[in-house]
Amino acid sequence: MDKFLITGCSGFVGRHFLDYLEDNRIKCEILGIDLDPMVPHRNFRYVNMRSECVDLLDQNDIERIIFDFQPRYILHLASFSSVAFSWKNPTISFKNNVNIFLNLLEVIRKYGLNTRILSIGSSEEYGNVAPEETPLTEMSPLRPLSPYAVARVAQEMLSKLYADSFGIDIVITRSFNHIGPGQRDVFVVASFIRRILEAKLSGEGMMTMKTGDLQIVRDFLDVRDVVKAYYLLLKKGHKGEVYNICSGIPTQLSEIIDMTAKIVDLKVDTVVAPEFVRPNDNPYILGDNSKLKRDTGWEKSFALETSIRDIIDYWKNVLTENNG
Amino acid sequence: MDKFLITGCSGFVGRHFLDYLEDNRIKCEILGIDLDPMVPHRNFRYVNMRSECVDLLDQNDIERIIFDFQPRYILHLASFSSVAFSWKNPTISFKNNVNIFLNLLEVIRKYGLNTRILSIGSSEEYGNVAPEETPLTEMSPLRPLSPYAVARVAQEMLSKLYADSFGIDIVITRSFNHIGPGQRDVFVVASFIRRILEAKLSGEGMMTMKTGDLQIVRDFLDVRDVVKAYYLLLKKGHKGEVYNICSGIPTQLSEIIDMTAKIVDLKVDTVVAPEFVRPNDNPYILGDNSKLKRDTGWEKSFALETSIRDIIDYWKNVLTENNG
Repeated sequence: MDKFLITGCSGFVGRHFLDYLEDNRIKCEILGIDLDPMVPHRNFRYVNMRSECVDLLDQNDIERIIFDFQPRYILHLASFSSVAFSWKNPTISFKNNVNIFLNLLEVIRKYGLNTRILSIGSSEEYGNVAPEETPLTEMSPLRPLSPYAVARVAQEMLSKLYADSFGIDIVITRSFNHIGPGQRDVFVVASFIRRILEAKLSGEGMMTMKTGDLQIVRDFLDVRDVVKAYYLLLKKGHKGEVYNICSGIPTQLSEIIDMTAKIVDLKVDTVVAPEFVRPNDNPYILGDNSKLKRDTGWEKSFALETSIRDIIDYWKNVLTENNG
Repeated sequence: MDKFLITGCSGFVGRHFLDYLEDNRIKCEILGIDLDPMVPHRNFRYVNMRSECVDLLDQNDIERIIFDFQPRYILHLASFSSVAFSWKNPTISFKNNVNIFLNLLEVIRKYGLNTRILSIGSSEEYGNVAPEETPLTEMSPLRPLSPYAVARVAQEMLSKLYADSFGIDIVITRSFNHIGPGQRDVFVVASFIRRILEAKLSGEGMMTMKTGDLQIVRDFLDVRDVVKAYYLLLKKGHKGEVYNICSGIPTQLSEIIDMTAKIVDLKVDTVVAPEFVRPNDNPYILGDNSKLKRDTGWEKSFALETSIRDIIDYWKNVLTENNG
């Protein structure tokens, strides 16, 4: 029975990874570690789960936990993943991304454990790109433009080094924008859908929504397709290799609003408000996922409209429960 | 009168930087900070010098010191600069390179100080290169191949970010191999010269010296030319720009031995010993210094033979004092 250590397990992606294992009847032992205490979000039959609170900056704690558990796989989701936070607190962001990752690697190296680590990177590593430079492949140049993005590039360089020079079994991702039920509404798609639903539920026949630049194009992938990719990379990814995790489909933000408005049957007008426009935001992000497909057999399962419908259902539950 | 804060001030480069200021009669106020207590190596007339012991990982201490001193310039020499150490202690090396640098930057940013920082990088950032890719210019790709080199690239990426996005006044170097009087004999040129001198002083007419690969080519620059470049970059370097600090002259290690043997008048035979051969060592490093020359007017003053003669004199003093 495989043993997975999942850092940052209580987050959006961690919970969906557990769902993936359970829904696919993958018998496994999980140790979830997180800064916050973890409340199981469902009952598990196949997943044998326990969790522990730990600060990954504490090298001694990490060492004890990993050595005791001897995981076959580490899914390293823990991170300070907000670009905005990294601008306000570059040092904290950097340490909580790079240093915690180094601490993990050092335990594997020190004890020579037979453990594969999935190092999660970000499409932010590519920085601003011209549309003609897309779709971005794993060979595209990295031009990180935020403290968060620099930390991710450093993490990736360290991953390659530990794989190539110390023989540590690491697979590396550059993950593009995730969407899906359970994502907080600080993210753009969740925010749009929540606000449209709130207007609809309040009985309005139409709404005017303040937004940022709706011409912006992103490569959105359903979190359930993301966690499938993570599982397949842990099982089949090539050691020391980098993989884009993306849909390969460009979506303009305006399409998200149009699709949601149509599904919930509400007329939505939009107006660009300066407070929503991010300075120097990347106008066009699109990835190429052919390496992931080739090496793992991964295929995307969730069409954008399915994701949107599921996110609408999620927020309907949240909003009506809150009002009930 | 200019105020300079020098981190890692008691080291080889720090002491030569102080000599440069003094010998050029540059009136200035210096605060040297270092892990170790600093003993002045000479008397100063123009340089008004004091020092303080501090661990740069201690954010509070750094903040107090920099805010109190309000330096116009920071020459950031403190680092764990051994590649070998970084292989054995990657986490310690990484933290003592990247985190201490971030701590410095954060003080400048937090208080909006009018301070220019010189961020010292390394030719190690380029990784292994084919001779036909040389001379390396600042546009050459970075392919770091050790934990130390990764830390230097991360430092450089953070420097560019803080310059471009926060407007912090940072100039960045990629410094190639230094040589000069006072350098410890863990470095190759000092080691060769010391061993040849020891044989000579012992009265031998010839010696057989164990070495690593003597075909290896390096771009050596006298430390006194290095510190001149650092001073000129602090004064005239362009904000946010990267500068190679190098001689632009390729030197085979065997040339160092031949030159030294001739000057001290000793017949030196060499034999390659496996324990001196570094695995995966870069066979050929050569930099292009035209950007440094163009932007600052810097010119190299010390010919290789002058450096060698001065290093010989230095070790003669050390060795005869030890025996005296």
